[in-house]
Amino acid sequence: MNKPLFDDETFFAGYRALRQKGGSYNDLIEQPAMAALLPPLEGAAVLDLGCGCGHNCVDFIARGAARVVGGDVSQKMLAVARRENAHPGIEYREMGIEDVDGQSGSFDLVYSSLALHYIEDFPALSRRIFRLLRPGGIFLFSQEHPTTTAPCGGPAWARDEEGRKTAALVSDYGREGRRSVEWFIEGVEKSHRMFSTLVNSLTGAGFLIDRVVEPLPDEETLAAAPPMRDEYHKPSGLIFRAKRP
Amino acid sequence: MNKPLFDDETFFAGYRALRQKGGSYNDLIEQPAMAALLPPLEGAAVLDLGCGCGHNCVDFIARGAARVVGGDVSQKMLAVARRENAHPGIEYREMGIEDVDGQSGSFDLVYSSLALHYIEDFPALSRRIFRLLRPGGIFLFSQEHPTTTAPCGGPAWARDEEGRKTAALVSDYGREGRRSVEWFIEGVEKSHRMFSTLVNSLTGAGFLIDRVVEPLPDEETLAAAPPMRDEYHKPSGLIFRAKRP
Repeated sequence: MNKPLFDDETFFAGYRALRQKGGSYNDLIEQPAMAALLPPLEGAAVLDLGCGCGHNCVDFIARGAARVVGGDVSQKMLAVARRENAHPGIEYREMGIEDVDGQSGSFDLVYSSLALHYIEDFPALSRRIFRLLRPGGIFLFSQEHPTTTAPCGGPAWARDEEGRKTAALVSDYGREGRRSVEWFIEGVEKSHRMFSTLVNSLTGAGFLIDRVVEPLPDEETLAAAPPMRDEYHKPSGLIFRAKRP
Repeated sequence: MNKPLFDDETFFAGYRALRQKGGSYNDLIEQPAMAALLPPLEGAAVLDLGCGCGHNCVDFIARGAARVVGGDVSQKMLAVARRENAHPGIEYREMGIEDVDGQSGSFDLVYSSLALHYIEDFPALSRRIFRLLRPGGIFLFSQEHPTTTAPCGGPAWARDEEGRKTAALVSDYGREGRRSVEWFIEGVEKSHRMFSTLVNSLTGAGFLIDRVVEPLPDEETLAAAPPMRDEYHKPSGLIFRAKRP
């Protein structure tokens, strides 16, 4: 996993600045879409995989969750979480998403925001999460869209003479596996999986796929952040809500 | 629907020539992938939506199906089907896919090969098909991949100096609706739907999504048809197998 990545000084500074600035894809599009898909959390036990600085963990408490476990590989992010988003109902744990473990049937919701494209073995992770959920429990996650994770290199967009994006360049979609990309620093490692692999990993683990969302900006968001219109050419993110029967 | 299209002389001649030549995407990739997903058909009742010249209808009989209904809007194709692929167990019906109707729970399999991207109202069609299936019955269909149906115009591929395809150009993915494209003739009408809309239409109708496949060529196929390697940049087709619980 990307343990070194999220504790890298340059990466961490860049990432914190991006998220604190506001108006990012996460703030404007992904987080509202994820919130709309949350099940009722009154009295619930929630596991947040890749909890970062703990923003969602405190939100789950505010929505009535009784117990939240936030896991992340980054000591730096967990330090911020424990300082800024502490609560008696929240336990922050240093752990890799792939190492997630615990008592069978101990969570009502397993949540993960824009982290699972870092994970190499998604079928194995799906089976682990299935086991951790109570019957009727929900696995809700977002990740980068497969058309975004696909390319092995080269520019991401075709542009017109004025430099405006006209179409996304999608290559290597059928070649699943690791990708090394630049994001604040070089060598950020991700895994590309086709849409079908995501679906079949979930159903293969026993999940029922309840809802899939490719979130897009509404009029209000477009007025506030015009560059978000490019999401209509190719969505950046993809959300699955799956249920343990 | 495309009733005029499939009975247009120019289109029909072009389409027949393409399919009879062999070595097409359908022959090499889509049809083998669909065949691998067929349920056991011994004694089954099968509905084939967009049956064309009836190739799959006779195949279902060969696999043991007791009764096959093949529906198509094209009188020209149905005339070929009745001449070349007749069987006492097969009934060919002139009908638009969207007009499909019949007794509830009367089919074990509803099948459709590369036709449903012509359909405008997929959620309504999913509900109709759900009703026509017996409990435990399967809805197996292929359609053009959403990254293929997406663009509203412009070239489909970025190319290098030698003209080789380097990446697919994907635009307007988030803008669902009708598209008018050229395929043998101008003005062929299709409907673009996002992957998420396909999934949610099926689950919304009550289906369990069993398996999704984005079929790709294997080594043998690539050796026989090298241009099929471009499928690894962007698959042409997408297959869903959904089950009525």
